[in-house]
Amino acid sequence: MHSNLKYRTIAYQGEEGAYSEAAAFEHFDPPVETVPQISFEAVFQSVEDGTCDAGLIPIENSLTGSIHPNYDLFLQHHLLVVGEHYLPIHHCLITHPGVTLNEIRTVVSHPQALAQCHGYLQSLPNVKAEPAYDTAGSVKLLRQGADRAVAAIASRRAAELYGMQILAEGIEDHPANITRFLAVASDSAPSGQDAKTSVVFSLDNQPGALFKALSVFALRNIDLTKIESRPLIGRPWEYLFYIDFAGSTDDLVTTRAISHLEEYATMLRVLGSYPRHRLGDEITRDNQLL
Amino acid sequence: MHSNLKYRTIAYQGEEGAYSEAAAFEHFDPPVETVPQISFEAVFQSVEDGTCDAGLIPIENSLTGSIHPNYDLFLQHHLLVVGEHYLPIHHCLITHPGVTLNEIRTVVSHPQALAQCHGYLQSLPNVKAEPAYDTAGSVKLLRQGADRAVAAIASRRAAELYGMQILAEGIEDHPANITRFLAVASDSAPSGQDAKTSVVFSLDNQPGALFKALSVFALRNIDLTKIESRPLIGRPWEYLFYIDFAGSTDDLVTTRAISHLEEYATMLRVLGSYPRHRLGDEITRDNQLL
Repeated sequence: MHSNLKYRTIAYQGEEGAYSEAAAFEHFDPPVETVPQISFEAVFQSVEDGTCDAGLIPIENSLTGSIHPNYDLFLQHHLLVVGEHYLPIHHCLITHPGVTLNEIRTVVSHPQALAQCHGYLQSLPNVKAEPAYDTAGSVKLLRQGADRAVAAIASRRAAELYGMQILAEGIEDHPANITRFLAVASDSAPSGQDAKTSVVFSLDNQPGALFKALSVFALRNIDLTKIESRPLIGRPWEYLFYIDFAGSTDDLVTTRAISHLEEYATMLRVLGSYPRHRLGDEITRDNQLL
Repeated sequence: MHSNLKYRTIAYQGEEGAYSEAAAFEHFDPPVETVPQISFEAVFQSVEDGTCDAGLIPIENSLTGSIHPNYDLFLQHHLLVVGEHYLPIHHCLITHPGVTLNEIRTVVSHPQALAQCHGYLQSLPNVKAEPAYDTAGSVKLLRQGADRAVAAIASRRAAELYGMQILAEGIEDHPANITRFLAVASDSAPSGQDAKTSVVFSLDNQPGALFKALSVFALRNIDLTKIESRPLIGRPWEYLFYIDFAGSTDDLVTTRAISHLEEYATMLRVLGSYPRHRLGDEITRDNQLL
């Protein structure tokens, strides 16, 4: 999707069939080779050391909120944000072929996926939820085991990849279950006309500090799309703020807002400007699916 | 500690010896009976249905940040915040009596405790970290098992309660490892002169909305001590904001700020005013321990 042709090898966390891999195929222009990594840390490392051209990491889910450890990785590494991607999440209940619903006693998946299907799982009698490290990984484990009483929750693609049966689809409690991903790379990329910019900064711990910081956007009618706070390690109850806002560092108003913010911030890093991904199409497509 | 005498039975999440239980004994005036609960949800429920007089839940850690699901519980229940408590966290490496460091192959604990001791665990050769549902619970499991190659990470009190050996103490990577707890009850409590107030609100999704919301505090020189955002379920990319600030609803300036905030908020709930817990003593005590 409208990304830079130069990204061929894309790092993502999880097993083949992970939602992150699906997002990578949607986000980057083909041809693309997706490269599974064991952790989000490893995604950042593989891009930093040049093993992969770019990485794609989930940063926020519309039901469960921010994925905070992934925010922290931005300060531990020196990558830039070069894109964003929204992926509607549709969970499937996946079993060995031929298994019926009342045979199932255990459902395995990533804790977030289990949480997102909590209502559906409650409706199944005598079924126990069991956390696993990964959605697609739980399907891989399912195939390796012979126990027909075990089911997994993951994507349709994960079921198909591992030759397993989809017993139910769209089992998430809320239809508006969307994950936002960020694409990261070593160098900045063109952000185009309809752009977003991500920054991270810290402030002096004094009354009105955050208000002043937000004034640099409000006074310029710049639309904030997200604010997130994270603890500053070693300085209890001081915070880092991550802010996403409309605009690109190619625009004068954005660069002026950033230099205004520098007047208040004790630390400031621009994580990058990138094309805004508009959800409209996906929401429509999503609704047509339901 | 300076709390209401009326709270006798205190609900907390975890097994006997949990950090939450230690915080309850420090926070509430004796005599206190602590009542373990299986989940944070169960803590809220047991206070709401009158089984317990109050509950104490961790809301934020200085290293790992907010405990977001506990924020969400405030909207699903109707309890008020009646106090806060800061507890310095000192982790111990706990084994069966007589076990030496080089016998250990597996260290079991809550994922947050494992993360907070990551550096220490890395320094032990051939040791694998294994997540468990609870710190004190991992010591209970340790005692039930006979495997001397397994160690747990938990509090000194958990080791003593279960008759286990403390092989190392203060194994957390950062000395400033402090957890903030909130005390919850069905009715409000006196907040005194040095108070904090917690509110939760949502805003229209338009430019400058958060800036306007923060202006009600900045224009009155009210000190914000914490801001946290959580997703609004069913309305992707709209947020709830949780704010803690200095002052009590007994003061005119606070009630004016709140009614000013009502002008901008699409939803607003005051979660309560309560005595501010000053960290000073604990930090000093903490440093003397080190």
